[in-house]
Amino acid sequence: MPTSSRPEKGSRRHRFKGAPDAGAGPPRPGQSRGRSGAERWLYGRHAVAAALNNPERVWRRLVVLAGEEAKAAALVAQARAERRGEGEGVQALDRPGLGALLPEDAVHQGWALEVEPLVPPDLDDVLRAAEIAAGRSIVLVLDQVTDPHNVGAVLRSAAAFGAAAVIVTEHAAPPSTGVLGKAASGALEIVPLVRVVNLARALDRLKEAGFWCCGLDAEAPEPLAALDLGQRAALVLGSEGGGLRRLVRERCDYLARLPTRPELPSLNVSNAAAIALYELVRGSPPE
Amino acid sequence: MPTSSRPEKGSRRHRFKGAPDAGAGPPRPGQSRGRSGAERWLYGRHAVAAALNNPERVWRRLVVLAGEEAKAAALVAQARAERRGEGEGVQALDRPGLGALLPEDAVHQGWALEVEPLVPPDLDDVLRAAEIAAGRSIVLVLDQVTDPHNVGAVLRSAAAFGAAAVIVTEHAAPPSTGVLGKAASGALEIVPLVRVVNLARALDRLKEAGFWCCGLDAEAPEPLAALDLGQRAALVLGSEGGGLRRLVRERCDYLARLPTRPELPSLNVSNAAAIALYELVRGSPPE
Repeated sequence: MPTSSRPEKGSRRHRFKGAPDAGAGPPRPGQSRGRSGAERWLYGRHAVAAALNNPERVWRRLVVLAGEEAKAAALVAQARAERRGEGEGVQALDRPGLGALLPEDAVHQGWALEVEPLVPPDLDDVLRAAEIAAGRSIVLVLDQVTDPHNVGAVLRSAAAFGAAAVIVTEHAAPPSTGVLGKAASGALEIVPLVRVVNLARALDRLKEAGFWCCGLDAEAPEPLAALDLGQRAALVLGSEGGGLRRLVRERCDYLARLPTRPELPSLNVSNAAAIALYELVRGSPPE
Repeated sequence: MPTSSRPEKGSRRHRFKGAPDAGAGPPRPGQSRGRSGAERWLYGRHAVAAALNNPERVWRRLVVLAGEEAKAAALVAQARAERRGEGEGVQALDRPGLGALLPEDAVHQGWALEVEPLVPPDLDDVLRAAEIAAGRSIVLVLDQVTDPHNVGAVLRSAAAFGAAAVIVTEHAAPPSTGVLGKAASGALEIVPLVRVVNLARALDRLKEAGFWCCGLDAEAPEPLAALDLGQRAALVLGSEGGGLRRLVRERCDYLARLPTRPELPSLNVSNAAAIALYELVRGSPPE
């Protein structure tokens, strides 16, 4: 068993050991070194602190509001002491100066970090980690969920409940910075966000690897709580408008619903994901 | 028993019968008839459709993207057939025209409705309804949660799980339109959003009315699932930054946690609220 590729429990990095170095990794499409403004920045206190604490995260500039320099310098010093010392240092700006670097409505809380993208984890990494994991593996699969608030919030809940990965379709998925990073509140550095070209094919591979795939569907006869999804489970959630696409739904071993009032609008997808994760772990809380 | 003041189950209105007429009600502070742009508009398909279906909602103008007129006219005709015929009709605009009416980042989905504020329900209405309700009454209490996305998402989950009300502090709470209405996805018309001046006093009144008040707190020793909160329960959630304020925490009968990994950032407040609601109703789903 290749123990060198086993992710450490509670580790703050999201890449699996053995993956290529972040700095040497190929930039993702649309995320080249020269990509434009919005996709270069993480912002928000938790998102920035988590990125600084992630040894796999290459960053360029930490920019804070004037008055936060001491706190920022301490964070950077601590991060540097533990790793390879990327980053060019701390810059303090006034509010208009910081705002000018970020999208207009960015909720930055006085903290912004110019970063390189993480090396994108792939499905092989997730399946390998599940293979050697001692305990339970839960992954979340999002079918055409494109709102970065929602994808970020799902990552955050995935981290809180110890999920192994969040899988999204490459097509139309939001970039892994900005709004998504803020909503993830640091979870972007912890939970692998896997982008795949073909979600149905990804479900096939999860099933081959022993995952039971359960789609959430308000019309399903069985409540999620009635199912035993065993040690390896994939929860599949559709977009709020369209639900699960037919090809995705047909790949699921089970369909299940949450016990909401049938005549009312459905739950927000990140809330549905949080509840489903809770339902799966409530008998055996994550470590 | 004054059956005339009993809210109908599954009713789409959120006001309690016996409350003064919406049109005659006093405008809320900051929401006078002459209030400025952003606070006059609901937008998003679900939010607009639910408002048109709410007999208590007075509206002025329905504005849709060109091409949606037929659908819009049908909705308005149906709404008119069932009620008093407020509203001046449907206007179709192109994308820049519709966008100019709304805040820059409004996710309007081609639908916007100029509305009057609902008559704000008060705590007396909620307590009276709980007094005469046959089944369970659950209310959510939000301590200094100011992000309209979060308050809206909590309302949406409250509707989905049949909660009786969401209670917020009047101070710093977002207006009941725009982002909040969009995130609530129609639930603003269904679940009373009660604004109180003093949250600690509101908890005292809930306790006097037989509600067990349970604060969610990541440091609490007991998981929420271990508590039996009985027929009347108030779930109290704090802001993500500060948690529950001391005066609010001290009013709670219980403190409980959700089973998340202790070393990681907390859940988003709307996700925590959704999970807590689910935990309370999963044994006895709402009707």
